[in-house]
Amino acid sequence: MPRQTQIGLMSPEELAAEHELQSANYATLQAAALTLDLTRGKPSPEQLALSSAMLSLPGDGDFRDGTGTDCRNYGGLHGLPELRAIFGELLGIGVDNLIAGNNASLELMHDTIVYATLHGLPDSPRRWADEPVVKFLCPSPGYDRHFAITESLGFEMIPVPMGPDGPDIRMIAELLAADPQIKGLWAVPNYSNPTGAVFSEEVVRELVSMPAAAPDFRLFWDNAYAVHPLTDTAAPVIDVLGLAAAAGNPHRPFVFASTSKITFAGSGVSFLGASTENLNWYLGHASKKSIGPDKINQLRHLRFFSDAAGVRAHMQKHRAILEPKFALVLRILEDRLGSSKVASWTEPKGGYFVSLDVLEGTAARVIELAKDAGIALTAAGSAFPYKKDPEDKNIRIAPSFPALPELEQAMDGVATCVLLAATEKLQK
Amino acid sequence: MPRQTQIGLMSPEELAAEHELQSANYATLQAAALTLDLTRGKPSPEQLALSSAMLSLPGDGDFRDGTGTDCRNYGGLHGLPELRAIFGELLGIGVDNLIAGNNASLELMHDTIVYATLHGLPDSPRRWADEPVVKFLCPSPGYDRHFAITESLGFEMIPVPMGPDGPDIRMIAELLAADPQIKGLWAVPNYSNPTGAVFSEEVVRELVSMPAAAPDFRLFWDNAYAVHPLTDTAAPVIDVLGLAAAAGNPHRPFVFASTSKITFAGSGVSFLGASTENLNWYLGHASKKSIGPDKINQLRHLRFFSDAAGVRAHMQKHRAILEPKFALVLRILEDRLGSSKVASWTEPKGGYFVSLDVLEGTAARVIELAKDAGIALTAAGSAFPYKKDPEDKNIRIAPSFPALPELEQAMDGVATCVLLAATEKLQK
Repeated sequence: MPRQTQIGLMSPEELAAEHELQSANYATLQAAALTLDLTRGKPSPEQLALSSAMLSLPGDGDFRDGTGTDCRNYGGLHGLPELRAIFGELLGIGVDNLIAGNNASLELMHDTIVYATLHGLPDSPRRWADEPVVKFLCPSPGYDRHFAITESLGFEMIPVPMGPDGPDIRMIAELLAADPQIKGLWAVPNYSNPTGAVFSEEVVRELVSMPAAAPDFRLFWDNAYAVHPLTDTAAPVIDVLGLAAAAGNPHRPFVFASTSKITFAGSGVSFLGASTENLNWYLGHASKKSIGPDKINQLRHLRFFSDAAGVRAHMQKHRAILEPKFALVLRILEDRLGSSKVASWTEPKGGYFVSLDVLEGTAARVIELAKDAGIALTAAGSAFPYKKDPEDKNIRIAPSFPALPELEQAMDGVATCVLLAATEKLQK
Repeated sequence: MPRQTQIGLMSPEELAAEHELQSANYATLQAAALTLDLTRGKPSPEQLALSSAMLSLPGDGDFRDGTGTDCRNYGGLHGLPELRAIFGELLGIGVDNLIAGNNASLELMHDTIVYATLHGLPDSPRRWADEPVVKFLCPSPGYDRHFAITESLGFEMIPVPMGPDGPDIRMIAELLAADPQIKGLWAVPNYSNPTGAVFSEEVVRELVSMPAAAPDFRLFWDNAYAVHPLTDTAAPVIDVLGLAAAAGNPHRPFVFASTSKITFAGSGVSFLGASTENLNWYLGHASKKSIGPDKINQLRHLRFFSDAAGVRAHMQKHRAILEPKFALVLRILEDRLGSSKVASWTEPKGGYFVSLDVLEGTAARVIELAKDAGIALTAAGSAFPYKKDPEDKNIRIAPSFPALPELEQAMDGVATCVLLAATEKLQK
């Protein structure tokens, strides 16, 4: 029985009645004593089981890659060439410009920024630690763990609005041309966290070619969801390194990716793609902290996939599990909130999140109400620099982990909280 | 037919004859066109094969640890409690004060120092980046990769002589009490790299209790060879954290260890032990770069060992492979160099190295001669800060990787080079 009236257009009496109704719904929700978690983009056990074979790979006696390297021993800071070739094909990066690391691409991002801070990049006028201030452009809503890295280093983070085709390019161009302290931009180009936006080729071209006042400005290009479509038409993986080179800025992008949401979230392989000069710089510093990545785990991945087609086929199995969850989330949002006009949300074609915008000034309250009803949502403001959502309206929904029945309960509960918080707010 | 005369006591004629003999030996050596490598402490394929079962562990369907954690997924920054308990028992550290990481304890050391540089330690007056200078005490000869970390950060490294029971404690005490810029000391307490020295309990007690001018002075306690004896009597693993706490300096030691020379050198598990305050500090910063270590690899190690006795039994198999190699090295050194008195060497009871001291001023020449004869030795000066061996006499011998016949060829070649370089030098 969908509501017929927009909440914002209700008479005081209608609003009071709606508030009463949602209060009653909320009491029922609390009585159910749920314990549900929509906080993080964690694969479900069903998804992890798709890679069960990896638990006994590479298998007894199998420890050499195609070049004859004994993967059990020390060495090989670049990672296995055959595995880099597979993911290079998927990412549009030549094997010489892609290295493979341990289980967290976040670590590659963190370390790249730390090395730039402590040692400077090859084209840095000085190391970032000696700059009066280092600024990063932060398309928002964005990924909280990105912002946590730059915040922990004391960088100034400048929010840039995200649109459906990527961040606000005009604003970025203006800032970048004027301010030599802007050293980086965080980006999730495909199926962005959390809005699901896919950067258009136009946006990518502008980002790699626009003038930057800082010679050592870098795009931190986290292509975490490069091969994670939820529809038949996968978003293209744009050759950002090639475009950057063609535009005369070959060293601008650092490309990151991983198998965290392909095989095992905690035991995957990470990748870093960049110009040869950038990679040599990175490896020079990385060689101080490690003799090489876990090559047996890389061999395990190589055996599991065999080739790029193997990865793509595997991702279709993930899609089969994820697609119904996203469809369910979108259906409940439409059913419960569609006519109320107190919320809007993205309809991602890939990735791991739905970005829900509730009535301005109520996101923190929604999250609090949900928590008190046993539904954990990502903390308020998480998708913004310094965890400050200027309009207090954004909530990141992560549908991947719960099973469908729990997800349905949780989303229905969230909808109740959204409506209750809205009627509370409008009554004030 | 051992030589009867010390080279230093030879008449000019005898010396010329000896030089001619060794030149002839060297010509024969070069003619053999060897390609042998004694550079790094790499386990041999035979040693790696001891852990072959790991290539198919944990096995299909096995992905939960004893606490029920799904090791495939994200999370668990501390690492698996059961594995930490096993290595905690071996290292004399309670499970709450030991965390387990990825495949390189070098990374834990590097990151700990980087975090202290960028953020300061809990008891730092200021972050190390804001100190006018940071100094580290470097017992030498020591581990080149330690020194590379502190050199890369621009720290001043102060060499401290190593003795058979550890570094020169009197010198350390004087420096430490006087200079608040001394923030750290590198240590390999058991079977030190490269001398094989074992720190005595007396030395350890002094190191944890002596006054330090810097409140944030730390021992970087790399117990890489804690369970790596080459004899029946294993050196005890001294409870450095307990002694430090008893001495009123609970936060002084950071203890590092790994399975790199227990299971697979490139695919092991690393450990960091410290006071609760230190660990919380470390984890707070580490949480910015990773959601957690590779827990499946930790589970794999847990399944492979089961308990601490499993590790000890496994290390006896390593010993059975390593002991003959060390015996061979010592026999050749004695046979070829014993009576010449132009060299001395350590006789380690564990670990991975023999430290060879040749005639002063000839180490670089020996390494050059060996290289030209196809025998790779660790670069001259490697075991000293800034790669500067003040007396140009130390050579690190790593006997683990080559098979016995190759090791015999290589060591015999090295002995020839030592004698040739000595006669060259003494003739000048």
